[in-house]
Amino acid sequence: MYEKLNISTPTLLLDEEKCRKNIQAMAGKARRLGLLFRPHFKTHQSHEVGRWFRNYGVTAITVSSLRMGEYFADDGWRDITVAFPVNTRERKRLSALASRVRLNLVAENTESLQALDDLLQSPVGIFIKTDTGYHRTGLEPRQSDIIDRMLQHMERSSKLEFAGFLAHAGHSYRGRRDKVVAEVHREALDVMQQLRNRYEGRYPDMIVSLGDTPTCSTMNKFPGVDEIRPGNFVFYDLTQVFIGSCDPDHIAVGLACPVVALHPNRQEIVLYGGGVHLSKDRVEDPEGRTIFGYVADWTERGWRLPDNPAYLRSLSQEHGIIKATPRLMQRTRVGDLLCVLPVHSCMTADLMKEYLSLEGKPIDMMKW
Amino acid sequence: MYEKLNISTPTLLLDEEKCRKNIQAMAGKARRLGLLFRPHFKTHQSHEVGRWFRNYGVTAITVSSLRMGEYFADDGWRDITVAFPVNTRERKRLSALASRVRLNLVAENTESLQALDDLLQSPVGIFIKTDTGYHRTGLEPRQSDIIDRMLQHMERSSKLEFAGFLAHAGHSYRGRRDKVVAEVHREALDVMQQLRNRYEGRYPDMIVSLGDTPTCSTMNKFPGVDEIRPGNFVFYDLTQVFIGSCDPDHIAVGLACPVVALHPNRQEIVLYGGGVHLSKDRVEDPEGRTIFGYVADWTERGWRLPDNPAYLRSLSQEHGIIKATPRLMQRTRVGDLLCVLPVHSCMTADLMKEYLSLEGKPIDMMKW
Repeated sequence: MYEKLNISTPTLLLDEEKCRKNIQAMAGKARRLGLLFRPHFKTHQSHEVGRWFRNYGVTAITVSSLRMGEYFADDGWRDITVAFPVNTRERKRLSALASRVRLNLVAENTESLQALDDLLQSPVGIFIKTDTGYHRTGLEPRQSDIIDRMLQHMERSSKLEFAGFLAHAGHSYRGRRDKVVAEVHREALDVMQQLRNRYEGRYPDMIVSLGDTPTCSTMNKFPGVDEIRPGNFVFYDLTQVFIGSCDPDHIAVGLACPVVALHPNRQEIVLYGGGVHLSKDRVEDPEGRTIFGYVADWTERGWRLPDNPAYLRSLSQEHGIIKATPRLMQRTRVGDLLCVLPVHSCMTADLMKEYLSLEGKPIDMMKW
Repeated sequence: MYEKLNISTPTLLLDEEKCRKNIQAMAGKARRLGLLFRPHFKTHQSHEVGRWFRNYGVTAITVSSLRMGEYFADDGWRDITVAFPVNTRERKRLSALASRVRLNLVAENTESLQALDDLLQSPVGIFIKTDTGYHRTGLEPRQSDIIDRMLQHMERSSKLEFAGFLAHAGHSYRGRRDKVVAEVHREALDVMQQLRNRYEGRYPDMIVSLGDTPTCSTMNKFPGVDEIRPGNFVFYDLTQVFIGSCDPDHIAVGLACPVVALHPNRQEIVLYGGGVHLSKDRVEDPEGRTIFGYVADWTERGWRLPDNPAYLRSLSQEHGIIKATPRLMQRTRVGDLLCVLPVHSCMTADLMKEYLSLEGKPIDMMKW
């Protein structure tokens, strides 16, 4: 299919049909479960892809930086949560964005709240970052002294409104088609329920917000949760396939890479496509190999992952080295394009900074 | 020192003095050894940093893509080697760049040569990519049938001029203050010498080109080599420190990162600074830990790595998690900036797309 696209350098293809199906499925699931759906836009970072969500009733979004919040505010989004511990050094940006949109920030200490009080002119919502076992950021329920001090601070503040508790159970990514994701989810629900029990009487409107693609894709019960914030599902990737979040057919982005050399003596193909395109993110595949991507077959309309695909065994700055199957080795020529499915679509998209649709249309992304 | 710089988001600081010293040292070494010095500009990707090389007599450069070749041609560089197996899908770029500068390309098969012959209007130099044991790309001397066919092809071509043999001994990066770098170097010299012995009679002007920062930094004899092409040395990084290529004081870039949360209960500090800033490149440090960066101390003029530094234990898209020393934990506050020395400066620079000098001046880089 790629002959018509006129591709000469590594190019990130976006299959709009697969992407829209992923959005539709997650939006439908949230609706059926009675959950607010506030998708994380850090994966696609694109006005156009963001607009596709509007068809499925989405009006509130999550971003990972103030700059990304500004970018989506510029395209009309008016209800934005920055799901990252607030960086109070960005004084002007915080103040300006808070005056443009309904802004929710995330905090986990009173120092940040004090700094916000000093710099903001407009009110913002504050989620208290909660640690449900990932131990990256956030407070555990047993740290109730800090939580209570934060709540007291917000009670006194005219600008900081307590929005609820927000967590990201990133350790669900350690799951591999086994019970890990379910255990992580159960643990997260338990932690959030403790907080709900303790604070809901005093804050009946508080929101309990969870969200990671593995649990949102595979779990079917979210008792005590009000809102979900998955992001990666918009494209999915090989990591999600191995976790069991999706099938390979759901992966909506593929990197088209020129073949620059063949080494049949060691069954290897050298691609123009390296760490500056795919990122150096790696994953262990079901065969126990550390891989940087799989090679899909081109089809009439896009691509399809074959059984026992060839894999990227290593990446340097611009090179990717494929350990080929006999079938791929035999039919590949210098100057061909191969389609690589990424290990981590968020990082690949962030590096590529532009998509090309299967119809040959460039789809713009946030640049800085 | 950072108070004067007004930094609010992750920012890549460039210490011009350290950088110029690195350039001066490598240029001086090449001169003393009678080697052509054709530095690789893929690490810094900056017009301004490129200009600093001119002070040390550099007139010929190496790049890793045609786009990068165009970028430096735009700043007056007229002798450029693209050290990547030529991507013949970039027909227009190849043809246009060959008409603007003395262009050397790298090939390892006759298919690429045929494609070049068909698309070029102007002559180019062709290096035959040689594999000295890294087994990423290139031909081994025993593949003399292919080498000879390539030479015959060039004999018949009016546009393709045989420039010599070019190798990158990337497996020198596996060295750790031991004999690996020396062994890799000896093996590379041996391979190149075989080719010199076989072809120099017929091609007396051919160039033997080697170049990687570990061997160029640590080795002192390059018999049979005409040209070196190191790149990373311009900034160095922690990987090079662990290999033994440089001291920590030679590292010329540091990522200034805002502190967004503290977790004294587990001695951790949360930084705004993640995989989209530093890349996900990791390395094993001398303590056997997998690290994503070290935390340097700020000094009056820049930074300095202390003994037993704190380290980045993990990165996600925007977060970095520091395993702190008691000293760092005790003195760090939310809203501070910390200075992270990168594991791999090439990848970090490629992601950041701009530097800030220690005097507070932005230094531009190639954007696309």
